[in-house]
Amino acid sequence: MHPLYQHMATSVFERMSLAAAQHGAVNLGQGFPDFGWPVEILDAAARALKDGSNQYAPSRGLPALREAIAGHYAQHQGLKLGVDQVCVTSGATEALAAAILATVEPGDEVILFTPAYDAYAPLIRRAGGIVREVPLQPPGWRIERAALQAALSPRTKAIVLNNPHNPTGRLFDREELSLVAEAAVSRGLTVISDEVWEHVLLDGQDFTPISAFAGMAERTLKCGSAGKIFSLTGWKIGWLISSPELATLAARAHQFLTFASAPNLQAAVAYGLAEGDGWLRPMRESFSRARDRMTAGLEASGYAVLPSASTYFLCVDLAASGIAIDAEAFADQAVERAGVAVVPLSPFAEHDPPRHMIRLCFAKRDETIDVGVEAMAKAR
Amino acid sequence: MHPLYQHMATSVFERMSLAAAQHGAVNLGQGFPDFGWPVEILDAAARALKDGSNQYAPSRGLPALREAIAGHYAQHQGLKLGVDQVCVTSGATEALAAAILATVEPGDEVILFTPAYDAYAPLIRRAGGIVREVPLQPPGWRIERAALQAALSPRTKAIVLNNPHNPTGRLFDREELSLVAEAAVSRGLTVISDEVWEHVLLDGQDFTPISAFAGMAERTLKCGSAGKIFSLTGWKIGWLISSPELATLAARAHQFLTFASAPNLQAAVAYGLAEGDGWLRPMRESFSRARDRMTAGLEASGYAVLPSASTYFLCVDLAASGIAIDAEAFADQAVERAGVAVVPLSPFAEHDPPRHMIRLCFAKRDETIDVGVEAMAKAR
Ligand SMILES: CSCCC(=O)C(=O)O
Ligand SMILES: CSCCC(=O)C(=O)O
Repeated sequence: MHPLYQHMATSVFERMSLAAAQHGAVNLGQGFPDFGWPVEILDAAARALKDGSNQYAPSRGLPALREAIAGHYAQHQGLKLGVDQVCVTSGATEALAAAILATVEPGDEVILFTPAYDAYAPLIRRAGGIVREVPLQPPGWRIERAALQAALSPRTKAIVLNNPHNPTGRLFDREELSLVAEAAVSRGLTVISDEVWEHVLLDGQDFTPISAFAGMAERTLKCGSAGKIFSLTGWKIGWLISSPELATLAARAHQFLTFASAPNLQAAVAYGLAEGDGWLRPMRESFSRARDRMTAGLEASGYAVLPSASTYFLCVDLAASGIAIDAEAFADQAVERAGVAVVPLSPFAEHDPPRHMIRLCFAKRDETIDVGVEAMAKAR
Repeated sequence: MHPLYQHMATSVFERMSLAAAQHGAVNLGQGFPDFGWPVEILDAAARALKDGSNQYAPSRGLPALREAIAGHYAQHQGLKLGVDQVCVTSGATEALAAAILATVEPGDEVILFTPAYDAYAPLIRRAGGIVREVPLQPPGWRIERAALQAALSPRTKAIVLNNPHNPTGRLFDREELSLVAEAAVSRGLTVISDEVWEHVLLDGQDFTPISAFAGMAERTLKCGSAGKIFSLTGWKIGWLISSPELATLAARAHQFLTFASAPNLQAAVAYGLAEGDGWLRPMRESFSRARDRMTAGLEASGYAVLPSASTYFLCVDLAASGIAIDAEAFADQAVERAGVAVVPLSPFAEHDPPRHMIRLCFAKRDETIDVGVEAMAKAR
């Protein structure tokens, strides 16, 4: 047995969702919306089940979906992508796995900005790589030149970037992204860019993919997610975008991880992307309002809420809220006694993780938020 | 970049399917049926899209599906499985990937019986393992004690078994399975048992899982496939069955490969499994008839067809059919000039692969078989 898995915990998202179910708590832990998906896409998926093929899709994805994805990025980010730059995957998690397994060789060092999504480090380690954490400091969570420089070495081969950033809700600015791009270009690094939150932009913000920076297009493996675009996180239709050369390598890893994804869900995502972007504005507006509602509710009961510019998440600083216990203990007692599941940030870093921060998912109906906020009032 | 992927070819199944589409050829290469799925399951999947959740399923699978899988094996193989022994995956390919990544450490030797399904070796190598091939000799393709013994070493950690066997269509007998079980038990090996064809049994044959042999239950990671049970290969709902301890390790690998699979497809598979096994007999009978029809057609134009007891496949011995060119060349010219895609067996082994064998998928309607057989007559 590989020792990595002997000492590994269950993903904190899964753990908190199971605890929420067990205790009948409102689930503000794992990130998924409880409203707001476009119903036409469900209809398209049902139609494709009946009218389309239910046999293996092409490994890199249905041609219609690969074209729709290329068209989507042309429209939204001004990118000119060929279909040979698109590889459909079984969710963004598989996109990450394929990108990391294709990229990282034993002994390679890989940079992570922490707190970091929990899949990155185990995948890097299973690939034989060595994780180098670059801690982002609260409350600003900025990428700082000195911290990045300190982590780079001659053995650095890749940087995993996550922008917009989960769990902090930060959208990195041009200056921060330039630091990453400069390091990557000057050292010939690959950047695995988890941009699954690229469309969950609050307050009318703009998003620039890292591949738009000079010299980056040829060294970036970008992960995207239909689940996040359409608020259908269970579908697990994601993709990798890269140069044709990197796409070929990643597709070779992908073909032996899942081979392909369900054709009816792919067809429905293709339909949704081709229909235009009518769903994006209402989604952004309703999630901005949801964030505001949750922030106001939490502040009313004395919680110190950090700003969030993107993702489904906001963070609460327990210490600044006058709560002395650590985030793990708080999360355990919140789900067991107060009836609300939240996620502590401690599992998002190995070295010196933030121990007094929790993350809440605000992508919920008003009723869910109100129940959650009330439970949070009880939890302190 | 990991060197494995720089020198890797595209999966032969994908390559032949793309060639079939490009040349307008009938596709007898990649294994998928073109008829025979139970329509009620499509309806169940469509209902679940509308009535159920489309957000993340639990990582190990919907409870209803895990229970249905345990119930299915209780009914069909007399196994008593707890739900903690079942982990749902995004197809059997992901089950294999999770099992291999969880099991194989750098330097471990892993036994493969060749010709072997094309995903095993790259996954073992990406895990850092060393592939030891045990060649099965045509036309009998038997597991022989001497060949197995010759491949075992003190560094052997695992055996990948595939029963029923793709591409040969063999169902290994008790004697052969005992050889595998004895080696595994006496040396403390893990057996990764790809049993996705366990229900595609022709001529009324019985199937015994390797875990039923003495001492094997605690060391077997079995891969199963809903796609093969319901003739819906595109759905990519598979599972791992093992001891609770191995299931926990594999589930930790799985959580960072795809995390979970689409809940509506899981719900539909649960529905199908819980409905009983009414679909199995007609499926077996129609595929037996399809094999017979294809065999007769091929023999009529002079092909030497090997027997097939299971899977969707039969093999043709080109040399014994009086065809002198090798299987790769034959496959290329068959798809380009004669209008039929088949799969050469050469990519299924690295050392001394069978060079004059091709595999054809017979899980097709009569019309498809007839067109394919006619094209095969032209191809020689
Ligand atoms: C795959 S479960 C995690 C979902 C998510 O993105 C999150 O909660 O951060
Ligand atoms: C995942 S594509 C391969 C399908 C199959 O089992 C085969 O053709 O052997």
